[in-house]
Amino acid sequence: MSLPILAVGSVAFDSIKTPFGEASQVIGGAATYFSVAASFFSTVRVVAVVGEDFGEEQMRVFGGRPIDLAGLERVPGSTFRWKGEYGFDLNSRETIYTHLNVFDRFEPKIPEEYRTSPFVFLGNIQPGLQRDVLDQVKTPRLVAADTMNFWIERALDDLKQVLRRVDILIINDSEARELADHPNLVKAAQRIRAMGPRILVIKRGEHGVLMTRPSGDGFFAAPAMPLETVFDPTGAGDTFAGGFIGYLASCGELTDAALCRATIYGSTLASFSVEDFSLGRLLTLTRPEIDRRVEEFKKLTHFDVV
Amino acid sequence: MSLPILAVGSVAFDSIKTPFGEASQVIGGAATYFSVAASFFSTVRVVAVVGEDFGEEQMRVFGGRPIDLAGLERVPGSTFRWKGEYGFDLNSRETIYTHLNVFDRFEPKIPEEYRTSPFVFLGNIQPGLQRDVLDQVKTPRLVAADTMNFWIERALDDLKQVLRRVDILIINDSEARELADHPNLVKAAQRIRAMGPRILVIKRGEHGVLMTRPSGDGFFAAPAMPLETVFDPTGAGDTFAGGFIGYLASCGELTDAALCRATIYGSTLASFSVEDFSLGRLLTLTRPEIDRRVEEFKKLTHFDVV
Repeated sequence: MSLPILAVGSVAFDSIKTPFGEASQVIGGAATYFSVAASFFSTVRVVAVVGEDFGEEQMRVFGGRPIDLAGLERVPGSTFRWKGEYGFDLNSRETIYTHLNVFDRFEPKIPEEYRTSPFVFLGNIQPGLQRDVLDQVKTPRLVAADTMNFWIERALDDLKQVLRRVDILIINDSEARELADHPNLVKAAQRIRAMGPRILVIKRGEHGVLMTRPSGDGFFAAPAMPLETVFDPTGAGDTFAGGFIGYLASCGELTDAALCRATIYGSTLASFSVEDFSLGRLLTLTRPEIDRRVEEFKKLTHFDVV
Repeated sequence: MSLPILAVGSVAFDSIKTPFGEASQVIGGAATYFSVAASFFSTVRVVAVVGEDFGEEQMRVFGGRPIDLAGLERVPGSTFRWKGEYGFDLNSRETIYTHLNVFDRFEPKIPEEYRTSPFVFLGNIQPGLQRDVLDQVKTPRLVAADTMNFWIERALDDLKQVLRRVDILIINDSEARELADHPNLVKAAQRIRAMGPRILVIKRGEHGVLMTRPSGDGFFAAPAMPLETVFDPTGAGDTFAGGFIGYLASCGELTDAALCRATIYGSTLASFSVEDFSLGRLLTLTRPEIDRRVEEFKKLTHFDVV
């Protein structure tokens, strides 16, 4: 009873430097992390663009999984490239360069057979393009979206138009504070829910995730799993979104309980993702490993009141 | 079966500026927050020093509670004064001044009747003085301690001597990273436990608390309660410690389960403390309010796996 998910976003080559090592021109991008993570739970239909340098070898990242690539365009030019460097405790990151390349002219074209997808995930792209995607799909059951400070600062009106059509917004804490223009996260969440999304998921990096319950009855909080080896945080947010939306699509309900579990599945996928560069760890991951770590999350957070 | 707690630390006048208001020369200090928080659960025996400006009116903060003040010295001079200013989201703080005054010559003298206290809390004071306290007490059942970057940088040898005699170290995340000289909290926790404390409690401000289980079997994580009104974070860490140690002293056992509950009681007390300046909220707090918020913590963090 798993429902297909339409995912729109970037596919990229990332170069990454952390205190623990370096990786050059490895596969990255929001749509990549999202779709691989979500594919453990449901079918993903990818809409993205790559250049001629993204060949058969690179395509293998999607192979052997329920990932439909009919919407992955290959066009003349180079694939999106990004380089970033992380600080001492991995909590700060500096962008060395961003070369949009073919992504600069990305105009998401949703294949006919994708247009009735019941779940839609709008990765962090220009809000105008997120709107174009929504204009092409037919009454999805659930729309989730990501965005970033860049768009909050430069395309707020477009973003607000999109938010009115979004059910679940998945952003980080500084983005939530900036979008709501309020330092207190509880008040920021109230303001953002008034913009449209009935569920807000606030990602806090190594501090975990805070979700407003769909019933409106307060928050659910999940810590990040304390890990001995955090190699590369790149893509952790998109991996979280993939596990979160993927799980929801697999269980097909949107109750408080299902959304709390989805938060834990998302956190679980993200906790694996950071254990290696690029999608290294996600590509070897198995469903039993996921379920074991979900149990570890329970042990990490549950207590008895006597 | 509640056990008495000996608490040594500062009593102070704080001046505080936050984005939401200002408070001038209000009562503060680690021993004050700790003892008022712990007094909801157990008897506290305070050892601290104040000046002549700390009169009957100020003493009322301890009144009507199981707080024994035989060890609170009043000496000529002024009480410790501190002024701090918080940034936009309350996550950063600048110290405007620190006037140690009578605290500069503080030499903790433990009254005879306090020396057999089964629980001891060493507030954040010079490690040499923490050692002097331990030299005066007789085989306590549990020793908990706090410290800060200042002592890690300036008195590391003394601090390491103290840590060999400490069961529970309660510090914040940047202090844990600095003490262990490692950016990864899991590895930092291993290194700190090798220094003596079998339990490490890492405070992360608005991101909650991470505790190593006494069994050595991983961590317990508690988020901070998302609050609409965070007025003043001053003293939240000491209030946490008071609720944590107070609860442990009231239940008298040191199992994994008891320590997880203690983490939640500590987080609960801290969540009330920040709702008003100084000890304003703690002084009106009731036990039923505490127990209700502990239930809210359960709702905030628990999920079912299906």
